[in-house]
Amino acid sequence: MIDEKGILFVLSGPSGVGKGTVRKELFKYKTDLKYSISMTTRDIRAGETDGVDYFYKTKQEFESLVEQNQLLEYAQYVNNYYGTPRAYVEETLASGHDVFLEIEVQGALQVKENFPEGVFIFLFPPSLEELKNRIVYRGTESTELVRNRLKEARNEIKLMDAYDYVVVNDQVDHAVGKIQSIIQSEHLKRERIARQYKKILEDEIS
Amino acid sequence: MIDEKGILFVLSGPSGVGKGTVRKELFKYKTDLKYSISMTTRDIRAGETDGVDYFYKTKQEFESLVEQNQLLEYAQYVNNYYGTPRAYVEETLASGHDVFLEIEVQGALQVKENFPEGVFIFLFPPSLEELKNRIVYRGTESTELVRNRLKEARNEIKLMDAYDYVVVNDQVDHAVGKIQSIIQSEHLKRERIARQYKKILEDEIS
Repeated sequence: MIDEKGILFVLSGPSGVGKGTVRKELFKYKTDLKYSISMTTRDIRAGETDGVDYFYKTKQEFESLVEQNQLLEYAQYVNNYYGTPRAYVEETLASGHDVFLEIEVQGALQVKENFPEGVFIFLFPPSLEELKNRIVYRGTESTELVRNRLKEARNEIKLMDAYDYVVVNDQVDHAVGKIQSIIQSEHLKRERIARQYKKILEDEIS
Repeated sequence: MIDEKGILFVLSGPSGVGKGTVRKELFKYKTDLKYSISMTTRDIRAGETDGVDYFYKTKQEFESLVEQNQLLEYAQYVNNYYGTPRAYVEETLASGHDVFLEIEVQGALQVKENFPEGVFIFLFPPSLEELKNRIVYRGTESTELVRNRLKEARNEIKLMDAYDYVVVNDQVDHAVGKIQSIIQSEHLKRERIARQYKKILEDEIS
């Protein structure tokens, strides 16, 4: 079933949860997914290509794009800007391809504000799942350690509120399988499909 | 990741679209899915078991359950009632199992009214997909045949408005794979998972 437009999928989660590993494994299977290319003000390095590794801009250009709301998110590291250009994402979606963005939580929240129609997936640390199982199956262990982990857990769980889906990264292949299911089922949503058919049929009947 | 409750999945679509075939194939793989057992007023037959093939009731019992809103949907065929008992569905969900219901469009709309938290999947005739492709890829063929198919298509597409997902039944194994993705991704929705974690952590911290 062809879609009129692609979908932006955003994978995020606490640092250290394994976002990069999951993304790399996913891209081995999902070859129709386009990886979102970032924009940066750092110098181009030997072996890199503009528009492939990054879009390279001067600071002035970058700041002017920020002012025009042309970045879905951006941040500054070590004196350089890095960000996600809106134009590349929108053009890729318009050509019918899904875009996949792997990003830190702060960046994901910016994207959510600038592009709420994206699908936001929170990669969940297995430690939190283990914690839950320990509580559920082994009763209350009120050690200081557990109590501290519970506090941390509470903070991490607050973070997930902006997301559409939560995937536990207990095993990379399981997490990848779940993300593939999310991608497939998002394309099956009635609103999307009804919109396509209605448009085509109305064009035809009228 | 354990869930607090199961999910009701409702598969429906125009008659002749192949709902029964898809359901049977799905059940070969998804052994953790419970098939919704119907209630009927027809006589029990040799080899049938109450609570396995059907729940058998008298007409009076059935009508009294209808009055108490204890059926998610029902219909009368050849002087007998057939319906979906709410209690069986709710108890099965409460025990943590998903329930799968395959049903005609009229029944599905009744279930939607009585149990809106279900996930409603519309099985789509491949003929309609072919029609769309013919229009999209081969330009306008304004024969009487195409025009009539377009009218029919319009009516069928109106039917899908109450559903959450649309799956084309072009090939049984494709349709089954898509339904499996929907089942998996519905379990990954943030609201569900956040609710579980918040409950467990709050019980623990408070």
